[in-house]
Amino acid sequence: MESAFLKQINSPKDLRKLNKKQLSFLARELREFIIDIVSTKEGHLGASLGVTELTIALHYYFNTPYDQLIWDVGHQAYGHKILTGRRDNFETNRRLNGLSGFPKRSESEYDTFGVGHSSTSISAALGMALASQLKGEHKKKHIAVIGDASIASGMAFEGLNHAGVTSANLWVILNDNAIGIDPSVGALKEYLLKATVDKRPLQANMIEALNFHYSGPIDGHNFEELLGAFAEMEKVEGPKFLHVITKKGKGLQKAEEDQVKYHAPGKFDKRTGELIDTLDKNLPPKYQDVFGLTLLELAEKNEKIIGITPAMPTGSSLKYMMQKFPERALDVGIAEQHAVTLSAGMATQGMIVYCAIYSTFLQRAYDQVIHDVALQNLPVIFCIDRAGLVGEDGATHHGVFDIAYLRCIPNIIIASPSNASDLRNLLYTVSLGIENPIAIRYPRGRSQDKDWRKEFKKLELGKSKTLLSGNKIAVIAVGSCVADAKKAIQKTQDPSNFTLTDLIFIKPLDLDLIKKTLRQHQHILTVEDGSIKGGIGEEISRIALEENFAGKVESLGIPDKFIHQGTTEELKDLAGISNETIKNKLISML
Amino acid sequence: MESAFLKQINSPKDLRKLNKKQLSFLARELREFIIDIVSTKEGHLGASLGVTELTIALHYYFNTPYDQLIWDVGHQAYGHKILTGRRDNFETNRRLNGLSGFPKRSESEYDTFGVGHSSTSISAALGMALASQLKGEHKKKHIAVIGDASIASGMAFEGLNHAGVTSANLWVILNDNAIGIDPSVGALKEYLLKATVDKRPLQANMIEALNFHYSGPIDGHNFEELLGAFAEMEKVEGPKFLHVITKKGKGLQKAEEDQVKYHAPGKFDKRTGELIDTLDKNLPPKYQDVFGLTLLELAEKNEKIIGITPAMPTGSSLKYMMQKFPERALDVGIAEQHAVTLSAGMATQGMIVYCAIYSTFLQRAYDQVIHDVALQNLPVIFCIDRAGLVGEDGATHHGVFDIAYLRCIPNIIIASPSNASDLRNLLYTVSLGIENPIAIRYPRGRSQDKDWRKEFKKLELGKSKTLLSGNKIAVIAVGSCVADAKKAIQKTQDPSNFTLTDLIFIKPLDLDLIKKTLRQHQHILTVEDGSIKGGIGEEISRIALEENFAGKVESLGIPDKFIHQGTTEELKDLAGISNETIKNKLISML
Repeated sequence: MESAFLKQINSPKDLRKLNKKQLSFLARELREFIIDIVSTKEGHLGASLGVTELTIALHYYFNTPYDQLIWDVGHQAYGHKILTGRRDNFETNRRLNGLSGFPKRSESEYDTFGVGHSSTSISAALGMALASQLKGEHKKKHIAVIGDASIASGMAFEGLNHAGVTSANLWVILNDNAIGIDPSVGALKEYLLKATVDKRPLQANMIEALNFHYSGPIDGHNFEELLGAFAEMEKVEGPKFLHVITKKGKGLQKAEEDQVKYHAPGKFDKRTGELIDTLDKNLPPKYQDVFGLTLLELAEKNEKIIGITPAMPTGSSLKYMMQKFPERALDVGIAEQHAVTLSAGMATQGMIVYCAIYSTFLQRAYDQVIHDVALQNLPVIFCIDRAGLVGEDGATHHGVFDIAYLRCIPNIIIASPSNASDLRNLLYTVSLGIENPIAIRYPRGRSQDKDWRKEFKKLELGKSKTLLSGNKIAVIAVGSCVADAKKAIQKTQDPSNFTLTDLIFIKPLDLDLIKKTLRQHQHILTVEDGSIKGGIGEEISRIALEENFAGKVESLGIPDKFIHQGTTEELKDLAGISNETIKNKLISML
Repeated sequence: MESAFLKQINSPKDLRKLNKKQLSFLARELREFIIDIVSTKEGHLGASLGVTELTIALHYYFNTPYDQLIWDVGHQAYGHKILTGRRDNFETNRRLNGLSGFPKRSESEYDTFGVGHSSTSISAALGMALASQLKGEHKKKHIAVIGDASIASGMAFEGLNHAGVTSANLWVILNDNAIGIDPSVGALKEYLLKATVDKRPLQANMIEALNFHYSGPIDGHNFEELLGAFAEMEKVEGPKFLHVITKKGKGLQKAEEDQVKYHAPGKFDKRTGELIDTLDKNLPPKYQDVFGLTLLELAEKNEKIIGITPAMPTGSSLKYMMQKFPERALDVGIAEQHAVTLSAGMATQGMIVYCAIYSTFLQRAYDQVIHDVALQNLPVIFCIDRAGLVGEDGATHHGVFDIAYLRCIPNIIIASPSNASDLRNLLYTVSLGIENPIAIRYPRGRSQDKDWRKEFKKLELGKSKTLLSGNKIAVIAVGSCVADAKKAIQKTQDPSNFTLTDLIFIKPLDLDLIKKTLRQHQHILTVEDGSIKGGIGEEISRIALEENFAGKVESLGIPDKFIHQGTTEELKDLAGISNETIKNKLISML
């Protein structure tokens, strides 16, 4: 298709020159452009297709960037990026040194607030709106666009609850498509659904109870309705709320039909939507599936086993257990805090609770891990997926702080298995009963063991493993770094110089093995896929000093800066924990 | 008064032998008992007085501990403790090895869930209720008692939102007294107030929109109404909600009149309620007042300065600025997540935002500090009160993890001033404009400088200070530990053996000074009032190894276990960071 309109639009100013009738043509072009690029370059698809008209209408109606548009989460912001001067380099989306997959302040003045995690938009927009009020900019509008999955998170409620007692020029646009990454859940979702089904304003309006002016529901794919609603809302002072109904994946039939798969579908045929399955069926399993499938096996044998996920049934692979045991495997929505304390409550009753949360999202429930789980020493099992660098999702999503933020918490055991079998056996071992909470962290992506589904073996908690024995330098590595350290050693001229220890347990440390390792080697190199500051390298340094170790202890890990997007391999290299960088460090230490 | 009924009650079983008419007499005795003890032993007063009838009614009606009662926060649980077998040792409340000031699982089977931080009760109770369902215990009741300040927090909303789509035998009792520690705020509070004022059920019921059966409002000081409402609710299946109106401080006139002061009033005359002011007017100021009064001074001169507190205007002393500049100093309620992201939003608009949160409560906003502030490098100023050990509030409230959980976050500056002047000058220095977020942590209680209100002096960020110069051992201390380290050195036979460095900045470290210190001393002792794991002792160990330091580096700090309640001095001694324990360590190192 000829991109007659889109190619003229280098900023929303150009957009505002179009007449209303032309907007539908632009919408079609914008959708095609997004489909075109995502079909080959990959990324998030469904969310941006769902808000194509809404995005155009917002930039058409509002005076961005003076008026401030805040996208919640940001999966849906591709259209926004393309219309705000980033069309021509949009193909660098999610690549090293390219555009971020999420709105990012340093990228554009139209990206008013960096996002990636959900439910921040109302608080951020309210902060901006209150600041504008203080500066006397009363006409300046602050528009938070938030999905129905995100608005059900506690943080969004906190924002609404505060906004309702202000006179801020705050517009909350609810993009209600009844789905986040997986279908939305919870009582609020059911409540909102009534408005969609009845196609009329909500009775007993919750939003009005919070002092917002409520309007809608309207069809979010209809420019007349959108622009008309904005104009009507303009007449209302103070916080206002527009309920917009959209369809995720709109405009690509397959994406509308399978909204979960087309959230981030990988490569596909841009005409038919058919997924291009380049997958070698012989690949080893993803860690998430090792978790999900093993948990299902365990749950079949033990009815006390419970699985909890905050809104990630597909991403965590808890879906397997959810399909078979819907009463014992629960998606609680984007509610990490609740997920953790719910797990704690269940654990008090003798349930064996596997609470699956990505490393970066567990940050949302940090207090609950400390105060509700660890302090009471409840044996909740945290299955922490996406630990370490996660690649293309970038800085908002890397799981590089968990070692530091968990290690200081008393009572908790922290494991970081380096392979599928150890993960599987850990999941099994803890199902037999433990006396402490445990965090089992594992990376995004695939393991290296095709043959992982063997008979269960009980592991000894707190026991590390020596994989290679050498005589000069001992490498003590964690989780995903073990394989890279091994490769690094194998690449050196004389691998017999090096011992390789798979720590497996970050807490408690296998002090016997570590002390023995200190006695038997000249130097130590620690390698971890988490922050150096607060990492195990520091702890082992302290132990080395206590043991009067005379050699050097060097530490590789994530340096003290945020790492942005790229392939995981590129980012490991940048961070200094790729096999090549480890090898170079080993050679320099010899 | 003769305690005719209370003295017979050693468990709720005894309580259930009374007839309904006797309950009022018991309530009177229970109030007097609480007043009696708190007036001399100190502790939390108003909340427990407010729920005296509710507490009795709950244990009278429900079959505790089979039915599970979960108190939110726990300030209000004194009556509960006294009625559940802890009457005779209640005078040990909040003391070392005594009763905890909060419900605690290890203390009693009636304490079903440990609390201290707010808004956890619905999630915990729901977890228990779902577990009971799975176990076939459908008649078992799970009762969360939550205040109107706590239920406005996002976490409580997450619990309600999930509960509403279950059929759990969950009872949520809203103890609505329109106040937390300070008066409640927010749209939900205003909404609830309508029911109180109109004395009739809420129109457009938010709670029913979340699929709860709603009843009330009822008078929470009236046994007939309470017991009648419970019986009515019994007929309803699934999640149910009772709106109970109470008065905080009920039964002690002064406490009813000044609810903020009588939340935890210190010693008072048990007959008149008159506070016993034992305070020496010549004492140096509390750190919180150094913050609050200095901020007011700065705000008077710079209209870009904003103060934010999540529900702690009195405790943080932000109240001074709130009184003078209500538009620029905001209490956002128990909403730490929102408070931080709101601050971030304001900072994007050039505001200079001081966000005051206790160390232990900042755990609730950990993700927001990383994702919304540090990642975007927004210059929000976190004023972290109650850092280190806090004394009688115990394990739920110590601020001992902040060094570890903040130190791993890129971009953020972390300061830990050891005295009032440095705190004051830091607050001033950052008001002049900074390019990074900063966390300024300071302890509970009083500083040591009476003469603190001097002319402002700009401090150099990242610069440590040598307070004493010696020739053998260098003590590198943080925050509140500096004074103890100094005393410890002075107590040794020959203080000239010791150098004392006040780190002031935990991040960035003053590497020049640290390296120089390493070169000039035989051994190093680090002392911090945070967790050893992840603490600065570990980082300095790593640096020492990098510098080929030949001596010992030893580290004092909070050991890897939870520290319970006691006076701060007692707890410092237990943790090994009192001046006496530091002295002993120094002598052993010589």
